[in-house]
Amino acid sequence: MSSSLDDAIHDPAAQPFLPLLFAAWDDGDLTTKELADLRSILAATEAGDVLVAWLDANDPPDAPALAHLGQHVHEQFDEVGLRTPIELGTDYSPMAASPLAEADLAAGPFGPARALPKNASAITLSPLPDPGPSAFDNDELAALLDGPHRDTKQRMRSILSQPRFQYQYDLSSDEYRELVLGWARTLADEGIGLLGMPESVGGADNTGAFIAAFQTIAHHDLSLLTKFGVQFGLYGGAIMRLGTAPHHAAYLHDAGTLATPGCFAMTETGHGSNVADLETTATFDSSLDELVINTPNDLARKDYIGNAAAHGRSAVVFARLLVEEADYGVHAVVVPIRGASGRPMPGVRIEDDGHKAGLNGVDNGRIWFDKVRVPRANLLDRFAQLGADGSYTSEINSSSKRFFTTLGTLVGGRVSVGTAGVSAAETALAIAVRYGTRRRQFGGPGQEITLLDYPSHQRRLLPRLATTYAYHFAFAELVESYIESERDPAIDRREIEGRAAGLKAYGTWHAMDTIQAAREACGGQGYLSVNRFGSLRSDADVFTTYEGDNTVLSQLLAKSLLTGYRSSFEDISPTRMARYISQRIGAAITEAVPGVGAIGNVTSSTSHRELLVRRDHHSTETLALRIKARIDAGNDPAEAFVAVQPHTLHAARSHVELLVFDAMHRAVSSCQDERLSSLMADVLSLYALAAIERDAAWFLRHGSLTANGAKDVTRAVNQLTSDLRPHARHLVDAFGITDEMLAAPIAL
Amino acid sequence: MSSSLDDAIHDPAAQPFLPLLFAAWDDGDLTTKELADLRSILAATEAGDVLVAWLDANDPPDAPALAHLGQHVHEQFDEVGLRTPIELGTDYSPMAASPLAEADLAAGPFGPARALPKNASAITLSPLPDPGPSAFDNDELAALLDGPHRDTKQRMRSILSQPRFQYQYDLSSDEYRELVLGWARTLADEGIGLLGMPESVGGADNTGAFIAAFQTIAHHDLSLLTKFGVQFGLYGGAIMRLGTAPHHAAYLHDAGTLATPGCFAMTETGHGSNVADLETTATFDSSLDELVINTPNDLARKDYIGNAAAHGRSAVVFARLLVEEADYGVHAVVVPIRGASGRPMPGVRIEDDGHKAGLNGVDNGRIWFDKVRVPRANLLDRFAQLGADGSYTSEINSSSKRFFTTLGTLVGGRVSVGTAGVSAAETALAIAVRYGTRRRQFGGPGQEITLLDYPSHQRRLLPRLATTYAYHFAFAELVESYIESERDPAIDRREIEGRAAGLKAYGTWHAMDTIQAAREACGGQGYLSVNRFGSLRSDADVFTTYEGDNTVLSQLLAKSLLTGYRSSFEDISPTRMARYISQRIGAAITEAVPGVGAIGNVTSSTSHRELLVRRDHHSTETLALRIKARIDAGNDPAEAFVAVQPHTLHAARSHVELLVFDAMHRAVSSCQDERLSSLMADVLSLYALAAIERDAAWFLRHGSLTANGAKDVTRAVNQLTSDLRPHARHLVDAFGITDEMLAAPIAL
Repeated sequence: MSSSLDDAIHDPAAQPFLPLLFAAWDDGDLTTKELADLRSILAATEAGDVLVAWLDANDPPDAPALAHLGQHVHEQFDEVGLRTPIELGTDYSPMAASPLAEADLAAGPFGPARALPKNASAITLSPLPDPGPSAFDNDELAALLDGPHRDTKQRMRSILSQPRFQYQYDLSSDEYRELVLGWARTLADEGIGLLGMPESVGGADNTGAFIAAFQTIAHHDLSLLTKFGVQFGLYGGAIMRLGTAPHHAAYLHDAGTLATPGCFAMTETGHGSNVADLETTATFDSSLDELVINTPNDLARKDYIGNAAAHGRSAVVFARLLVEEADYGVHAVVVPIRGASGRPMPGVRIEDDGHKAGLNGVDNGRIWFDKVRVPRANLLDRFAQLGADGSYTSEINSSSKRFFTTLGTLVGGRVSVGTAGVSAAETALAIAVRYGTRRRQFGGPGQEITLLDYPSHQRRLLPRLATTYAYHFAFAELVESYIESERDPAIDRREIEGRAAGLKAYGTWHAMDTIQAAREACGGQGYLSVNRFGSLRSDADVFTTYEGDNTVLSQLLAKSLLTGYRSSFEDISPTRMARYISQRIGAAITEAVPGVGAIGNVTSSTSHRELLVRRDHHSTETLALRIKARIDAGNDPAEAFVAVQPHTLHAARSHVELLVFDAMHRAVSSCQDERLSSLMADVLSLYALAAIERDAAWFLRHGSLTANGAKDVTRAVNQLTSDLRPHARHLVDAFGITDEMLAAPIAL
Repeated sequence: MSSSLDDAIHDPAAQPFLPLLFAAWDDGDLTTKELADLRSILAATEAGDVLVAWLDANDPPDAPALAHLGQHVHEQFDEVGLRTPIELGTDYSPMAASPLAEADLAAGPFGPARALPKNASAITLSPLPDPGPSAFDNDELAALLDGPHRDTKQRMRSILSQPRFQYQYDLSSDEYRELVLGWARTLADEGIGLLGMPESVGGADNTGAFIAAFQTIAHHDLSLLTKFGVQFGLYGGAIMRLGTAPHHAAYLHDAGTLATPGCFAMTETGHGSNVADLETTATFDSSLDELVINTPNDLARKDYIGNAAAHGRSAVVFARLLVEEADYGVHAVVVPIRGASGRPMPGVRIEDDGHKAGLNGVDNGRIWFDKVRVPRANLLDRFAQLGADGSYTSEINSSSKRFFTTLGTLVGGRVSVGTAGVSAAETALAIAVRYGTRRRQFGGPGQEITLLDYPSHQRRLLPRLATTYAYHFAFAELVESYIESERDPAIDRREIEGRAAGLKAYGTWHAMDTIQAAREACGGQGYLSVNRFGSLRSDADVFTTYEGDNTVLSQLLAKSLLTGYRSSFEDISPTRMARYISQRIGAAITEAVPGVGAIGNVTSSTSHRELLVRRDHHSTETLALRIKARIDAGNDPAEAFVAVQPHTLHAARSHVELLVFDAMHRAVSSCQDERLSSLMADVLSLYALAAIERDAAWFLRHGSLTANGAKDVTRAVNQLTSDLRPHARHLVDAFGITDEMLAAPIAL
């Protein structure tokens, strides 16, 4: 064999066939027929004799011979400048067609501004490629995304990029809590906590700037975000919105400067979402002019309260106000929970909620009150006043309306948590897209293509990027509406409350889905804590639960839709809903029915909106009919609503996806740069078509898409995804997350 | 007002209308017309005068009056035994129709066998309800799930339920690693590490029992699982499968008893999935009869190696064997990496991979070799031998075939990781279902219904439970096939390799989806670490990446399908694939084409299989046609395969979902108890219909379902979900996870 091997290797006529010969044997599994075919081809060549000697099925080349031939073939390739056998029409790389094989392991250099994180490898691989020239005005896009409070966002980025804000890993909960408290103090020292407070206490009276700061912190550590939100948004916000001038004077400055760490003590173990039924009591004792705060049973302990386990000194406690015989429903009272020593006040018992799946930089805890006394003046009395004689007055007579007005503070929380979810998705995409443009695989240098050039990789990331853009703009609009409604009490908040609930639910679900997809797109590298996905996912997960469980919020939105926002958001009883539905169905007959028949051309943005509108109308109308049919059949309205839950969720999603479309459409209609305008139109189309594709079964079932139309949708998603690839890096860079805040070594 | 209030409250005729009156005002938002309507109704009653006085829009009741009335109404309800106003045809509970409101906060008593975990609250709420009588033979189901190695599983459960195996939270990585090492030592002391080893070294030579043990550990801590798998499955397994008698004698006993902690050093930073191109070298130095192990560059460092950062003493290193001029491809060599002192051996550099998103009980690290010398005898030489004179022999001449034979060890890893994913999903479902049967909400005691009685809650959990059952049985069959193929070298492993890849990919994706859904179904409680979801999700996440990236594995399976398993699993070049595809398409013309036309009755299990078969055939056939069309148009075969990636993934999923169906069908066909048999048929139907519903758009587009058929599918999923509700607790209890292993306070 070795002589025939030498012959072949040294025969010039045989050279072109050697790679084929090598691949044929090395592939293994040649059938007898295939061997015979190959023999007859090779026999006809000039070097036929030499070559055919190699093709005897009874005398295959042995391992050393094959290795020798393989080496020769490799050397030959290099000589003629060919890098892989693919170019010779053959291929022995067994996984060359598995392009995602290497969404796996790599590391990059670190940003210059910070020291190496503990445990991070200093290995320097290929530098992050330059994003290349942009086809549009990047500055205009960045300004469009930042919106009206760009200055605040830029300032926050500069603060959060300081070395002291460097992420740390593998901390105990105690260490992490102290780190986060220190970060929050730095923000307070910079005056960020006072941004939303009234000027009377040294604040800037600028809710918009406050939310912009929150949104930017959401590109940093989410424990810090939560701590910040609890202290300044919930604790400070409750005193500001539910209290009056004396409360502002007494508490707000200390809240805004973090001189007094505070808690928002609403949730009870037995009453998470159903806060109207809270059991903690605040009983008026007129003899001492005091309120007595009490936890009647273990299920009524306050639970999951941020700032409670370690740092909180004061709490806004939500409790039923009892005056003599009367129960006036849930009110808010300021209660000191720890003294200057840090020990709980007499009658206050505090327990640590313990380790959590995420957000371990926040000290959540449980609080019990054993007849704790505070002055009557501690009642936050903007919406209801209690006299020294026990007289109770309120401009809002209905206790449930009063309660939901009190609860209005939560709307700000939902708006904020939703924006934070979108920010977290942006961080995840920025890391994964940057890594995808850097990581190359398979073949020799200069030959490999980047991960993000593979269609399945684009499919994982780019429709989610488009959807993230759409939610970003929808939340920007919601924030503006919310700020307006804060400024002007005459604005009807019901539609805003419904929109906030729906956007929060679907925005945070989208965030979780995106973070997971981005993690998987970075393979094993995505699993290292320094690359951020672990904490992003674990922390953002609870966004789907707190400030309102997403499933519950979806159902509340559906109820609002069914009743045409006729009642205040959470304040719709099944009976009233049943009545509204009857009216609505009666009225619907005289209204225009949604268009029927399949949409022909799915490539125009008009048709995208038309499809989303049809689904929105149809799903709400049929939901109403379903409920009515059940009630007519004798079911209790509450039971009827429960029975149609899957339809409820579908109606809510349909509505949200339409309003997100409209919001982004409005937001980008003002673009000056035509190329940017055209790009944003593509992003919006990709968002819409991806949503339609996800629910293609519905559109097919309801005759809004034909089978070919549905295939066109998929084709259009693929095309747009591919079209956006060259812009992907610019699109994520426009989020404005600094290298220091991004921090993931694979993305720098 | 107060006199009219007193009148109304004391007028017997007015009593029945008081709740309505109260609700009307307390609801707020009454229109003038509605007020007028109500007035005319009430005016006609006996107590008309008293009541109508309350309905003056210009003089609404003030807050104290309404509060007084509300209290009276409440007391009246209690007197007549009515608990909520719903029963009076009215309702003022604003969220009564939001049943998921309270997937939130609760806690339960702890199992008796263990002390309270640190930080856990000792509050005792309602006890876990008794599962109630079962409609089927629970023992038979438990035995069916446990399969042939039930004894081993029972023994493992008993070991893992010992107090020393209690979970701990908030540990530093160092503490967690030591805890896990201690656990692994306990298992080794119990002889579990030797279960799969040959009798020659004191083992039980029982691969089945070893995998059964692994599967049971997967119901416990997943860091322990990984440590166990690295030590006994990968390190020990590589020496067992790739080495010969002298290696067994030298290393296996110490591997199986954990006397020598070992590493499986395959992955390199630059080569994750593409292991055929590993760059580490093992160069033969005949003068000293040694192999010289070397890391040529930083990208070739071994990375993510379990046991490397802290505990490993020895490693099976995968390196290219170089002998004089020849490169014989990747071989495995045993290399000591740490001495008795625990310090790295000379020439060995080790770096900690650092904190990870999960599995922080495992010490992953990076290893560089700087010309480290080991005796030639350290080459694991079962498939290729190296003489002292540098002569190389192998019964497998093709280097790529040899490589993939070597890689066969990974198949066991994939089988095991897939089963572990299913176990993790089982744990998550056991916790969420148990909690769902305990947690009640809204209304007074005795009135509330449990979470799991709400349709949307059932929808979240029960189709996933059915799918988990189906994967459980599919993996059980795969394990048996794998064990057979280990015993009998004559068995063609290609189909098993393809099946393992597909089941691993879709099984672990299913696990992640299920864990997340279960977490959300437990609301805020699900976010507490003691309730397990945090670690389950963070740990299981990487199952989608290691032992083969899921997307890559899906594509490899699709390639196998396209080529009819004609090549060894990972060893299919695009060129060969192109050839097979041409042959296949030629042959397909003469074969029966898949049925066309819509399926009429979707309720029979025959039709479920028919739908899954059609999709499987059609998606593979059209995938082949798509690739061929691109090649015919002049594209490179590798590029053609890349371009059709989304179709590839769909074909892989379609195939896996069919084979899972068939596997479960075979597994449950042997049920003795007819009621169990019928229940399992329902579970299988729910699995199939949920899969069909998820891909309804495809079936609609391809004419296999009509619009009404698709609606029938959804209706059937809803019906089956509801039918399974009474059995849910029994179905999760049958997984056999002990209370000590489950440990989540909300589930005990």
